[in-house]
Amino acid sequence: MSLDPDPPAELVPSERATGPGGGDMDPEAFRDAAHRVVDLLADYLASVEGRAVFPPIEPGSIAPRFPAAPPERGEPLDAILADVERLIIPNLTHWQHPGFFAYFSTTASGPGILGELLTAGLGQNPMLWRTSPVGTELEGVVVDWLRQALGLPDTFDGLITDTASTSSLTALAAAREAAGLDVAARGLSGRDFDAPRVYASEQAHSSIEKACMTLGLGRASVVKIPTDVDYEMDVVALERAIADDRAAGRTPVAIVATIGTTSSTAVDPVDAIAPIAERERLWLHVDAAYAGPVALIPERRAAFAGWERADSIVFNPHKWLFVPFDASVLLTRRMDALHRAFSLHPEYLRTLDRTSPVRDYNEYQPQLGRRFRALKLWIHLRWFGLEGLRRRIDRHIDMAQAFASWIDDAPDWERLAPVPFSTVCFRWDPGGLGGAELDARNTAIMDAVNRTGEVFLSHTRLANRFTIRLSVGNLRTEPRHVERAWRLLRDAAAAA
Amino acid sequence: MSLDPDPPAELVPSERATGPGGGDMDPEAFRDAAHRVVDLLADYLASVEGRAVFPPIEPGSIAPRFPAAPPERGEPLDAILADVERLIIPNLTHWQHPGFFAYFSTTASGPGILGELLTAGLGQNPMLWRTSPVGTELEGVVVDWLRQALGLPDTFDGLITDTASTSSLTALAAAREAAGLDVAARGLSGRDFDAPRVYASEQAHSSIEKACMTLGLGRASVVKIPTDVDYEMDVVALERAIADDRAAGRTPVAIVATIGTTSSTAVDPVDAIAPIAERERLWLHVDAAYAGPVALIPERRAAFAGWERADSIVFNPHKWLFVPFDASVLLTRRMDALHRAFSLHPEYLRTLDRTSPVRDYNEYQPQLGRRFRALKLWIHLRWFGLEGLRRRIDRHIDMAQAFASWIDDAPDWERLAPVPFSTVCFRWDPGGLGGAELDARNTAIMDAVNRTGEVFLSHTRLANRFTIRLSVGNLRTEPRHVERAWRLLRDAAAAA
Repeated sequence: MSLDPDPPAELVPSERATGPGGGDMDPEAFRDAAHRVVDLLADYLASVEGRAVFPPIEPGSIAPRFPAAPPERGEPLDAILADVERLIIPNLTHWQHPGFFAYFSTTASGPGILGELLTAGLGQNPMLWRTSPVGTELEGVVVDWLRQALGLPDTFDGLITDTASTSSLTALAAAREAAGLDVAARGLSGRDFDAPRVYASEQAHSSIEKACMTLGLGRASVVKIPTDVDYEMDVVALERAIADDRAAGRTPVAIVATIGTTSSTAVDPVDAIAPIAERERLWLHVDAAYAGPVALIPERRAAFAGWERADSIVFNPHKWLFVPFDASVLLTRRMDALHRAFSLHPEYLRTLDRTSPVRDYNEYQPQLGRRFRALKLWIHLRWFGLEGLRRRIDRHIDMAQAFASWIDDAPDWERLAPVPFSTVCFRWDPGGLGGAELDARNTAIMDAVNRTGEVFLSHTRLANRFTIRLSVGNLRTEPRHVERAWRLLRDAAAAA
Repeated sequence: MSLDPDPPAELVPSERATGPGGGDMDPEAFRDAAHRVVDLLADYLASVEGRAVFPPIEPGSIAPRFPAAPPERGEPLDAILADVERLIIPNLTHWQHPGFFAYFSTTASGPGILGELLTAGLGQNPMLWRTSPVGTELEGVVVDWLRQALGLPDTFDGLITDTASTSSLTALAAAREAAGLDVAARGLSGRDFDAPRVYASEQAHSSIEKACMTLGLGRASVVKIPTDVDYEMDVVALERAIADDRAAGRTPVAIVATIGTTSSTAVDPVDAIAPIAERERLWLHVDAAYAGPVALIPERRAAFAGWERADSIVFNPHKWLFVPFDASVLLTRRMDALHRAFSLHPEYLRTLDRTSPVRDYNEYQPQLGRRFRALKLWIHLRWFGLEGLRRRIDRHIDMAQAFASWIDDAPDWERLAPVPFSTVCFRWDPGGLGGAELDARNTAIMDAVNRTGEVFLSHTRLANRFTIRLSVGNLRTEPRHVERAWRLLRDAAAAA
């Protein structure tokens, strides 16, 4: 159908796609192909528990199994899906496995996967209201739902980012502007202030240090405040560090408090830190990337006391809220400072919508382009309801507390940190072994357990001791998986 | 099945999920639900051409249609999918529509959507080799496939990021380290160098300026080099700017050249800029976010002459390679500098794999967590083959050149820039109208065309003239859509 009265000769109708290597997969071919992929994925999810969580793979052994050169001609779906089963699935670390106890879990819930499928197929980019009206407005709705769910006041607004790394970087960039340093415009070089400082405990996540590297503050700007025996920030040391820096002419900018540190899930005393931030007029950023969702449960909010006084809070729905990676939420009382840090108005992004009461989210974060992440969050929250999510988080905490009690009751095992949430830090210690020897034996125990493929643990160091971590957070984890981990650990210790 | 000889009393088997609000959607429930979503999405793709590309939506009208409070109880899938059809789909800007000619297109190809579905369901996070062996190694494979496809030498390595904003920020952070400024460690404040400088044309994308804001260099660090009548960087002005800065004691760090600027897709003369960068020992970053895929076609590589001498190159498969958003590729000859800019080794991320010849990609970029983007690229490249992608890109260029010829042949229309790729800049100009009046009439013409819903155009300003842009890049665009745009433009002009 030519709609032009004078169709130019050089434009002939293009071929329809009838197979690979042609044009796009047309909607019916897509339908057929996608149904096949759904079955492949459902089969994977049904079988994942039978797989080794971390399979025995030699580093560097996978890449050589793929062709070194790109395909010149298109290939049929059969060949591609066969290779998904042959080359991809056997070489995954199975984050979806109920025996995944390493790091902090990320589960991709069923409804969350549906959300990602729709996000991909609907092809949105909510950088401007105009480029995705519902992508933009639903983000506001979902962020506010989450704010309410966490029990935070409506002075908090926010946005969805990819990771806590980006959320914390965004917060610290805003902190620079809120401190009046005018860095977005003038930069940090050759200015009349010296040595910006960001205070975080020595247990804070590496993303804080990385954000400071990226932001041009440098690792040198991060003042690592000592922690107490429970790995919580020493508030007296914090006050002293700020006073010393002021006395030396340095420029305090922000304090980062962590609710649920990565190593041991320690809780910095935010209720004691917030008044210091207020008195010193420093931005207070709370990193609750892992533990944040616990605040969905009103009875468990004691750990979060004072966080409502923060300037910004990050928590990751892709961790303990079971939303597929990636989804981080930055809540803030200072959207204006984010805007000063990141707003630009090139002509090709100007729209007539700017006079209206809508927001162009790209002006509040480092990236211009944005995924439509609100969609999967909205579907996920509606499927589970807050009640369903609370119940699961509660059960995870119960499982971890039970595991902690087994450690506490076992004479040859030692718990190495409090367990405020669902992560247990521990080691085998039968007595009589020195530090290096004990570290080596615990490393061997963890490796032996991981080699069984039934569970997957990771480690950290606490007070210079090799520390095994068991973090409960996968949606599919049942008590029997935690029990099995404990059995495997004892077996490995007996054989060590 | 209790595997523990002494199962603790408090751990009872949890309920199975049988419906919403319970545990997860089990694999069979997921299978059924996902088949329904596939049909919904295939129906959407089959119907998208019948929808208004940009629907008539009042800003702020969507959010009030969602509940103000989060759902306490889980809801059934029926209710959620009904709302997808009722509230989500009618309020999208339809990037998947063949009449999408605004900005630069992003198409989510069928095979690309399948890749996103698998990415979500397989739940990977290739931040470390250990957290996704195939996610890590396939990224290396796919990046190298793309390098070969673009005709770049094997001295280029790289990684996949979310957006060109992140790719360019990453490159400029590396440039600081390559310049010996040691910013990652020491920061930019109070140092013995002054005023770092990044050179880019006045037509460079806002992401360069934003990256400099984020990196603590500030907007002040961006030296905007004038362009010639074709909006290409003036190389003489570039040399002069560098010399002036050196004479004034400032610190040149990097040059950003653009192959395919956002406003007019102008091509900076990289073959003339590269020797300057080499002589001045400045990092050369090439922004080919939009136009990069044209280099898949050997006969069209003239526009890319010299880019093989760049330190880094960004191009976005989510633009003109039809991969679902998000997918940007940063190619670089200086992975070592990226590593210096972003590497950190906290204990909880240490693995025994570090002694092996594998890479932990988180050490080369701002974020720790990472999506498994290589999977969708791999599926997409195999389905189309390079030959299939080249053919489609060629046809897009042909369609745009035809449209440009219609503009050139029409007495009341004026082309405002060269058309090196698939984007045409133009305006209606019957003669005798002043600048502001002509701008207003062209704004009205564009708005009238967009209100038809058949096509969607955006604008820019070139030489202070309101400029309508028509950018061909959607996988489904056929000659008849371009013809229709031309008819609608003429009708709107006649009615103006």
